[in-house]
Amino acid sequence: MYPVITINREFGSGGHSIGEEVAKRLNIPFYDGQIVERCSIESGYAKEIIEEQGEQASNSDKWFNFPSVSYMYYQTPQDEIYLAQRRVIMDIAKEGPCVIVGRCSDYILEYANPPIKCAHVLIHADYEHREKRILEKYGEVDGVDIKKRIAKKDKQRRAYYHYYTDRSWGDYNNYNLSLDSGKLGEELCVYLICEMAKKLG
Amino acid sequence: MYPVITINREFGSGGHSIGEEVAKRLNIPFYDGQIVERCSIESGYAKEIIEEQGEQASNSDKWFNFPSVSYMYYQTPQDEIYLAQRRVIMDIAKEGPCVIVGRCSDYILEYANPPIKCAHVLIHADYEHREKRILEKYGEVDGVDIKKRIAKKDKQRRAYYHYYTDRSWGDYNNYNLSLDSGKLGEELCVYLICEMAKKLG
Repeated sequence: MYPVITINREFGSGGHSIGEEVAKRLNIPFYDGQIVERCSIESGYAKEIIEEQGEQASNSDKWFNFPSVSYMYYQTPQDEIYLAQRRVIMDIAKEGPCVIVGRCSDYILEYANPPIKCAHVLIHADYEHREKRILEKYGEVDGVDIKKRIAKKDKQRRAYYHYYTDRSWGDYNNYNLSLDSGKLGEELCVYLICEMAKKLG
Repeated sequence: MYPVITINREFGSGGHSIGEEVAKRLNIPFYDGQIVERCSIESGYAKEIIEEQGEQASNSDKWFNFPSVSYMYYQTPQDEIYLAQRRVIMDIAKEGPCVIVGRCSDYILEYANPPIKCAHVLIHADYEHREKRILEKYGEVDGVDIKKRIAKKDKQRRAYYHYYTDRSWGDYNNYNLSLDSGKLGEELCVYLICEMAKKLG
């Protein structure tokens, strides 16, 4: 049986597409945006709020006047969303082999009890490749420098990851396989992840 | 034609054995200790000195009374050895596809002019796997804690790498493929590196 594959990715590295294609070839479910939907049902928060808060660093101050904050425990809506996402990720992983993108899924599943068989993948690429891919896929945003867009998104994901896991995003120790999609290309990344899953399966 | 494959490894992760097996399967030369021999001829330094200084951080002070130090430029014997190793690595890589272990070879070849087609691999593993492997391969050293041995060797390599490249050893941006040999096992690492080389070739 294939492991649950978590995909961690730099913005613009093609991690989402690579994960989707891996799931398709291995004929297992793929979860990225779908987690938001399940999390919305689980937590009661609107999908838009979950999307906005789902991979950003916690900032307790701005939530202090939010009605559902549990003042006693200083648990912000973002914390509640994280915990709901955590439950959703655990439930999904227990259902069987699948591909899950981001949302600290590597950390959450690594310490699951009872243990869940999983393999953690990091997809990265140099700025040049990421810029090209982002412009092709999302187009330009008026007045916003592409380098700043990349840096901001990466920074948010890193901060979110660090806040909830106390680990450094991008530390090679967290991943079983790290791939440079800029150098290798998306097709080779998909192939190597599938081969790894088959051999571990 | 396969790329030149550089292997960077944590002490005890099996990087040497993995690289050797990759070279065997791809039928290309393998260079680790052999670099020392060529470097000895190139630089005039004894093999033992090159081995000792080959992957350790520079420490100018202790060399200050060494007869061949070029006082004018503060170039230590270690710097001379680094430069000789650099020349040897460049010469080897120009001869055609091969596997080269450590010695900042990823950095040296990445910026070669004219460019050399290469792929940079990192092999790592958790402490538990590395401890087991080191004890099996090298045995115990009386009175020296295994964790301290690992930490010291890693620290030396990191410091050496940082000193001569001004980059962080282990930063995923430096590698096209990073593999956790503890989780994947040596055989799967060899297989994935060979597949990468064939598809890039």
